[in-house]
Order: sequence, then C-alpha cells, then structure tokens
Amino acid sequence: MKSYSEHEVIIIGAGPAGMCAAIYLKRAGINPLIIEKNAPGGTLNITHKIENYPGYVDKDGTVLAFRMYSQVEELGIDLKKEEVLKIEKKDDLYLVTTNYNSYASKYVLIASGKIPRKLDAKNAKKYEGKGISYCAVCDGALYKNKVVAIIGGGNSAMESALYMSNIASKVYVINRSSVLRADKKEQDDVKKKDNVEIVYDCKVLEVMADSNKLSKIKLDNENILEVDAVFVCIGQESNTAYYQGLNLKTDNMGILVDVDMKTNINNIYACGDAISKKLYQVVTATGEGAIAATNIIKSIRK
Amino acid sequence: MKSYSEHEVIIIGAGPAGMCAAIYLKRAGINPLIIEKNAPGGTLNITHKIENYPGYVDKDGTVLAFRMYSQVEELGIDLKKEEVLKIEKKDDLYLVTTNYNSYASKYVLIASGKIPRKLDAKNAKKYEGKGISYCAVCDGALYKNKVVAIIGGGNSAMESALYMSNIASKVYVINRSSVLRADKKEQDDVKKKDNVEIVYDCKVLEVMADSNKLSKIKLDNENILEVDAVFVCIGQESNTAYYQGLNLKTDNMGILVDVDMKTNINNIYACGDAISKKLYQVVTATGEGAIAATNIIKSIRK
Repeated sequence: MKSYSEHEVIIIGAGPAGMCAAIYLKRAGINPLIIEKNAPGGTLNITHKIENYPGYVDKDGTVLAFRMYSQVEELGIDLKKEEVLKIEKKDDLYLVTTNYNSYASKYVLIASGKIPRKLDAKNAKKYEGKGISYCAVCDGALYKNKVVAIIGGGNSAMESALYMSNIASKVYVINRSSVLRADKKEQDDVKKKDNVEIVYDCKVLEVMADSNKLSKIKLDNENILEVDAVFVCIGQESNTAYYQGLNLKTDNMGILVDVDMKTNINNIYACGDAISKKLYQVVTATGEGAIAATNIIKSIRK
Repeated sequence: MKSYSEHEVIIIGAGPAGMCAAIYLKRAGINPLIIEKNAPGGTLNITHKIENYPGYVDKDGTVLAFRMYSQVEELGIDLKKEEVLKIEKKDDLYLVTTNYNSYASKYVLIASGKIPRKLDAKNAKKYEGKGISYCAVCDGALYKNKVVAIIGGGNSAMESALYMSNIASKVYVINRSSVLRADKKEQDDVKKKDNVEIVYDCKVLEVMADSNKLSKIKLDNENILEVDAVFVCIGQESNTAYYQGLNLKTDNMGILVDVDMKTNINNIYACGDAISKKLYQVVTATGEGAIAATNIIKSIRK
C-alpha cells in the first residue's frame, strides 16, 4: 500500500493563476500545497515584455514571476518541484501522484496552464520575443504602422489578424492549406479589412534578419515577405494526460468551468490558461485564481 | 444646442477596472477617454495595505494606484478630472455630461465602483486601516488568533464572519436588530461555528484604543467588547444616479453584466465594483476591465 501526505488543498501549477489562488487560500488560514514541475511563474517565464498587467511597470516577465513567487514564499506556502503524473479518486480524497511522491486532498485546483505550439521554422526560436510573438494582445502594440504576419488559419489567427489590422499598416495571414479553419464569421470579418492579405497553401521555412532585427520570412513557395513581426497562432499545447482519469468535461480550448471555477467533478476546480475561456491573459488568470480560492474557502468552511 | 467632443470609448472611473480597460484599449490602437472625479486609483486610495495582488510586494494601496496611473499616462491616455452627471442616448451615440463638459461616444464602459458605507461611531474614522477594516478577505489575515467584531447582519457580514472564524480565535457579529438580514443558509453556516457569537439589538457607539491601538468597542447597550479589529459590513454606496436614464438592469449589488461585461443596453459595458458579482477584489476588477476592453475592441473592429 502506497503512503501519502494529506493536504487541505492541492494546487497543480505555479503560474499566476495557481499562485494567486495559493495567496488567497493561505491568507484565509488554509494551507495549500502547490506542485509545479518548472520554475514558478508559468507563461510569465516565457514572456519577454509584459506591459498590460496593471501596477507592474518593470515590463520583464520573469521579474513579475519572481515577485509573485516571493509573496507565496513569504506566506510560507509549500511548493514541491515535481511533475504530476496522475490524479485519481480515493474514497473522499483525490490522490495526486508525482514523479517522486503521492499527495492527497479533498480539493484539487488545476492551474497547469497551456503553452503555445511553437513555429517550426529556421531561426524561429532565436527571434522569440524579438519579432516572433505568440500573443497579439500582449505584443501587438509594439508594431504600430509596421508590417506583420499572422501564422495560422483558425479562430485565434483571425482574431489576431483583426486585432493587428488596426495597429499595423499591413497584415499577412499565412495559412498552410487552401481553406481557413476559422468560423465563417471570423473569416468574413478579416476578409473585409483592406490591409489584410491572406496567403494560402504555404508555410514559413525561415525567419530572416537584417542587423539582428527580424525583417523577412521565407515561405516554402519560394516567396520572401518583408515583415517586422510574426504572430504565431497555430494552437496551444497543454498537459492533460494526468487528469484523464477524472472524466472532466473539456472542449478544444480546455477544461469547462462555471463562474465559480468549479469543474463538473465535485471538489475539482480549475483556473487560468488550463480552462476554456475567451481571454487568456495574466490579469484574467489571477482573477480566476482568486475566485477559485474563495469558493474553495467557502466550501471548506461549511 | 450643446456642443460635445466625440471619443472612440468613454470610460467612467479610473479605478483598477477602468485603468486596466484603458490600457488594453489604447494598446489595441483605440483611444479611450477616462472621466474620474477623484484621484486615479479608486478604492486603492482608501486601501491601507494590499497583500493579495499578485506581483505587488510594496503593500501600500496608493502606491499601487500611482503605478497603474503611470502606465495610463505613459500610453498617453486622456483622463479628465470631472464628475459625470448624466448619460443619455443621442442618435447612435451616448452623450456623457459632466460638471464641466459634454462628451459623446458609441461605447461607454461604466467602471465607477462602489464605496463601503462607513461605520458611524466615535473614532471609527481615526482607526480606519488601523483596526477598522471594510474587507475581511483583504485584511483578515492580519488577525490570526485575535478577537474581531463583524458589524452587520446581511450576507456579506455572514461571509466575513465565516471567513474570520477560521483565522481569528473569536468572532463577534454585531447586529442592530433582533433578526439577521442574511439568507437562512448563510446564517446557519455562521451559527454552526463555535467561535462566533452573534450580539443582537445593538450598535457600536465608540471605538476605543490602548496606546493608540484599537482594543475595545463600546456598544449602545452599555457593554464593552475587547476586540483587536472591527470589520464593517453594512453595505456599499455607489453613484448610480448618473446612469438612471439608461434603463440598465441592476440588482442590489450592482449592474448586471454577462461574461463579456456587456450590460442589457447596446454598447454599454460595465466592470469592477460597479457590477453585481460574487468577489469584489482588485484582481477581479482588473481581469474584468481587460475582458470589457477586449469585447469593445472586437465590436469596434467589425
């Protein structure tokens, strides 16, 4: 028989959502355990510049991550650097198995986030945060009256194209096939824009630079486009394997939750980029973390 | 005929919700006008210590307000220090009349917040932020194993009592009449707690201190209770007069909005403490501001 330690709440993920939830829980006198496989901060650690988190003026993503973690640490919240492999129901508890240990709790908050699928092109990694971006709402403002390319043909690519059409002078949409995957309405909105040009049946082979500044992309149809930035919108990847045994309701964007951040499974909550929602931002993730925590607190107190 | 200037979006209120919305709009290439009658920051300016806003470690409410405003200012967002008196529909625009000017816009975002109703007792103002608090979720953590009093008998008083029952050693609930106003379920949850004592038919006359530290409250039934803190939960006041002409749907907590922060009136959005919701926190207000802005951006771009 396997042994495990029992905790009041287990939070999976130490991004902005999970850390905010932990702060709210601990300040309410409840001891959460956070389990995170990487450094605390989540997507903040891959965000080069953050200019839309109110009150944070220093702009560096990793510094914001560190400040959030310092609050978690100051409150004496337990954080284990382990990878969650499985959650299963065990009597009235959930048993969380990591690569090193087992932990049990009546309440689990899933805040394990999502990461954008990377552009598979030469030099794409090199220019990440220096012209290659995975979020138009985050970084679009840097390219006023510039030329940008959106990679992808789904709804998020259309939304990014629409968003950039008001900021950039010219927007290319690079789609690998001859049809866009996005809903017709989203496509129609984009096609109405004079400064958006959709390029079908090709993909990006290489990101090119002049004096170390991204300046061109080379397509597999031999064309070269002059652009100042590339927004990659080819989907997200999240680790969903560990919660497959729970029968959580999900859609193609993530876990379905109600306004209280409750999933369909009793005492399992979710928040942040792991859930299905419309706006994936640090500022929405933290708010959801606070809401999830407040509802867990109410449930524990009753 | 009155003259007015026309704006892409008018935001009423420069608290965390309104400022976050302005940041998102401006970064998307849309110029909002913010109208605020007081200093930017909203309730942050009356928050003595803020320890649950992720990434903000300096704890002073007014400093956080100033940092948010510095982002607004750096982006070159217009802010008028005026008081909104009226919003009315004028053709396809909304006309916003202040004490000095008139402004028009197709889109209005109401983010004018709410302020807690103050405790009317001797010295209450003097000890605000030094023992007198208007938010248990915000300040409760400071009173671990201490004795606290909750003033009020409605749902928010019950929630605060329940919240504090896990932190404080003893919780008094001071209710002015012989019955609590709260829903039965909320009352029942509180009455189950061993360390909560409900004191009926009285109100607080005076806040008393030892060596300038809040230590007692004097009730109008002559009793004196030894307490370390007082949480005042006797309702909120908000300026709702200016939008009465719009026929916005509201309940006793505020304006009703959907998940996109849309009200029942076309192109009128609302967010932050002005809306009806479950959790009134800086971190939820900013998230709502971002959501409202994103939906206004989508609507403008179509």
